[in-house]
Amino acid sequence: MAPTATATAAEQSQQHTKKAVGLAALDASGHLSPLAITRRSTGDDDVVIKILYCGICHSDLHSIKNDWKNAKYPMIPGHEIAGEVTEAGKNVTKFKAGDRVGVGCMVNSCQSCESCDKGFENHCPGMIFTYNSVDRDGTLTYGGYSSMVVVHERFVVRFPDAMPLDKGAPLLCAGITVYSPMKYHGLNVPGMHLGVLGLGGLGHVAVKFGKAFGMKVTVISSSPGKKQEALERLGADAFVVSKDADEMKAAMSTMDGIINTVSANIPMAPLFGLLKPNGKMIMVGLPEKPIEVPPFALVASKFTSPISLATGRNHAIAGILRVTDTHIVRVAECTGNKTLAGSCIGGMRDTQEMLDLAAKHGVTADIEVIGAEYVNTAMERLAKADVRYRFVIDIANTLDKAAAAPATTE
Amino acid sequence: MAPTATATAAEQSQQHTKKAVGLAALDASGHLSPLAITRRSTGDDDVVIKILYCGICHSDLHSIKNDWKNAKYPMIPGHEIAGEVTEAGKNVTKFKAGDRVGVGCMVNSCQSCESCDKGFENHCPGMIFTYNSVDRDGTLTYGGYSSMVVVHERFVVRFPDAMPLDKGAPLLCAGITVYSPMKYHGLNVPGMHLGVLGLGGLGHVAVKFGKAFGMKVTVISSSPGKKQEALERLGADAFVVSKDADEMKAAMSTMDGIINTVSANIPMAPLFGLLKPNGKMIMVGLPEKPIEVPPFALVASKFTSPISLATGRNHAIAGILRVTDTHIVRVAECTGNKTLAGSCIGGMRDTQEMLDLAAKHGVTADIEVIGAEYVNTAMERLAKADVRYRFVIDIANTLDKAAAAPATTE
Repeated sequence: MAPTATATAAEQSQQHTKKAVGLAALDASGHLSPLAITRRSTGDDDVVIKILYCGICHSDLHSIKNDWKNAKYPMIPGHEIAGEVTEAGKNVTKFKAGDRVGVGCMVNSCQSCESCDKGFENHCPGMIFTYNSVDRDGTLTYGGYSSMVVVHERFVVRFPDAMPLDKGAPLLCAGITVYSPMKYHGLNVPGMHLGVLGLGGLGHVAVKFGKAFGMKVTVISSSPGKKQEALERLGADAFVVSKDADEMKAAMSTMDGIINTVSANIPMAPLFGLLKPNGKMIMVGLPEKPIEVPPFALVASKFTSPISLATGRNHAIAGILRVTDTHIVRVAECTGNKTLAGSCIGGMRDTQEMLDLAAKHGVTADIEVIGAEYVNTAMERLAKADVRYRFVIDIANTLDKAAAAPATTE
Repeated sequence: MAPTATATAAEQSQQHTKKAVGLAALDASGHLSPLAITRRSTGDDDVVIKILYCGICHSDLHSIKNDWKNAKYPMIPGHEIAGEVTEAGKNVTKFKAGDRVGVGCMVNSCQSCESCDKGFENHCPGMIFTYNSVDRDGTLTYGGYSSMVVVHERFVVRFPDAMPLDKGAPLLCAGITVYSPMKYHGLNVPGMHLGVLGLGGLGHVAVKFGKAFGMKVTVISSSPGKKQEALERLGADAFVVSKDADEMKAAMSTMDGIINTVSANIPMAPLFGLLKPNGKMIMVGLPEKPIEVPPFALVASKFTSPISLATGRNHAIAGILRVTDTHIVRVAECTGNKTLAGSCIGGMRDTQEMLDLAAKHGVTADIEVIGAEYVNTAMERLAKADVRYRFVIDIANTLDKAAAAPATTE
C-alpha cells in the first residue's frame, strides 16, 4: 500500500511543516490506504507525539463509511492514541520528551467557557474532535492511524508506569465513555449493584471499572453463550439473559444503575424494571431510532406492570391492562423515580483520573494487536463484531512498512 | 345529596368505630355522592384529624372514572387534606389536639425498608395510598373528601402558622410533586435557569418554587395566551411558545432543568434542545403512550440537529440528515449528557420541608374554593381544564349540609 493521494493545499500551508504518514479513507467505500500528510509545526502549548499504538473504535468504522453523513475526506481515523513525546512547546509544563502519553477523542476546545472551566471540554461548543473536525487553522484534523500527532498539552494525558500502551490505548475512548457517567451519576460506590448491558468494547471495560470501584456487577445480555466469559474472564458477579423472563423477574428492582452500551433499538421498559427506585440507566450507545420509554416505568411507584419482553411494550401504560401479547412477564412492583441519561466521552481531568485509577486496579482493555497492513480486514471483522474486544494497531512497528508496500490491485 | 350507600362489613369491624361521612364514587361513572363510613379507632401512633379543606387533584378524576383500571369502589378520593387535630394516640409525640395539620398522598408504609430509612416512603413497596389502597387491616383507605381521617403520625405534616389551610392543601400533592425532584436533582440553586413546561396545577406551583429558590424561571407552553398570566400573575421571568421556532431557537441550550408537567404525548426532542449540557428533564406528568427520545438528543455533543417542531422527530437521528418535513428548525448545537427522569410525589421529611419553605416564601396554590355540593360540577370543569389552578372543597362548612340534602334525581 503506497501513498495514493496527497493532502490538500491548506494542510501544506506554511504552518504545517511536519511530515507524517497515515491510513486514510478517501471516500465512503470505507477502504483505508496510506496517505502522506503534514502536521502543524510545534506551537508553544503543543506536545509532539510519536504514535506507537492506536485502538480501533466502532465509531471509526461509522465515520469512514459516512454512516453519520458528516464525513470529510481524506479521513484518517483513530482516537485511542498511545505514544511517546518527542518534543514539547516552550509553554508546556506537564510533559517532556520521552514521556509516555495518550490522546483521546478531543484535541482542542475554547478553554474558556463554562463547560471548559468545569472540566467538561467534551461539552464545549468549540470542541475539536481528534479526526474529521475542522481545526482552528481551517485544516482537517487527522487521527491516530498515523505516525505522529501534534496536540495542545491540555488534551494529552500521562500513561502511568503500570499502564501498558497497547492495552491502555482503548481506555482513552471506551474507558472514559463508561467511567465519566459512572462518576458523574454516583455509580462508583462500593457495595452498589451495577448492571452492564452489552458485552463489547465498552461493556467489558465497564465490568472491570465496576469491580475496581468495589461494586457488584451483573452483565445483562441477550446471548446466554457469553455467561462464562462474563463471569470467569471478566470477573462479573452475575449474568442475566435479557430474554429469559424468570431471570429478569429475579433481578427486578435490584440495580442502582445500568450502563447501557447497546447501539441497537432494544425494548427498554423491562430494563427499567431492573432498577431500584431512583435507579439510573445511562445510555452510552447510540441506537438509530428513538428510544421508547413508558412514562410509568420512569415515574410511578407501586405499579404492577406486565411488560412484553419481546416488544418492550408495557401493556399497562397509564394503568390500562391490555394483555394482548403472549410473551408477558409481570415485573413485580415497578417502583419509580428512574432516570434515563445520555453520556458522551468525558472531560480531560476525568480522563487522566480514569487512567490513573485503571493503572492502580489493573484495568486494561482486552485487545488483539494487529499490523497496519491488516486494518481493512480488521474493519470487516469489526463490522461482524468478530473481535474480543478491541483491535489495536501496532503503529510503530508496521505503519512505515505498510505505507512503503506497493499498492494492491483490489 | 343524602347517603346512598353503606360501607362494607370489613370497615364496620370492631376496630372501625369512628363514624364519618364522605363523597364517594360507587362506580366508574365518576359521579360522587354522600356515603356514611367508619374510620378506625385511634391507634397508639395515630392522629385523628377533623378535615377542613381538601384539594381536588386531576388524579382524583382519573381514579374515580377508573381510567387506570385499578379502581376499588366505593372510592372516596382526596389526597390534599388540611385540618385540625382532635385527638392523638398515646405514643404520638409530634402533634396534639388543636394543631393545624395536613395529609398528602400516603397514609402508611412499612417504615423499616431502605427506602423508608432514606426518607423515601413513596418508594416503599408497602406504601399505602391515602385512598383506593388496601390498608393493613384489609379495609379500603378513604381519602379527604370526608369529614375526618385517622392517620399514623409519620404521615401527618404540620402547617406552619403562616400557611393558610385552603391555599396550602394542594401543596401536599402538587407542591411536593414538583419540590421533591427539584431538590433531588439539584434544581434548587439560586441563579440556575428552570424551565416549567405546562401551566396547570403542578406547573403554577413549580414556577413559584423556582422563584422561591432564587432561580430564573421560564414557562414553556403551547398557548401564547398564557404569557401575561405567567409573567405578571405568577412572576415567571420569561415565556417561550413551544410551537414558535424562533422563540425555541433563542432559548436553546439555556436551561439547567425543565419540570415537565404535561400529561399529553408531546414532541420531546425539541425540549431536550432547550437544556444545557448535563441538563435534566423531569417528568411529573404521565403521558399515555411511551415517550420517544432520540438518542442523539441525550447523548451527543456538538451535533447539529434539525428537529421537526410538529412531530418532534429528529431528522438527524444517528446523524442521517433527511429533511422531509416542512416544519424544521435547526437547533444549533445540541450538546449532550442530558437526563430524563421521572418523579412521583416525595417522602414525608421532604413534604414537611416543602411546606415550611413555602410558608417562609409565601408560596401557595392559586385556588377556587367550592362547596361539597358543587363537587360533580367541579369535576366536569376540571376535565375541561376550566380552573385556575386548583379546586379546594370547603369540607368543614359544606359537607354535612350536602350529605343531609335529599338526593338529586339526576
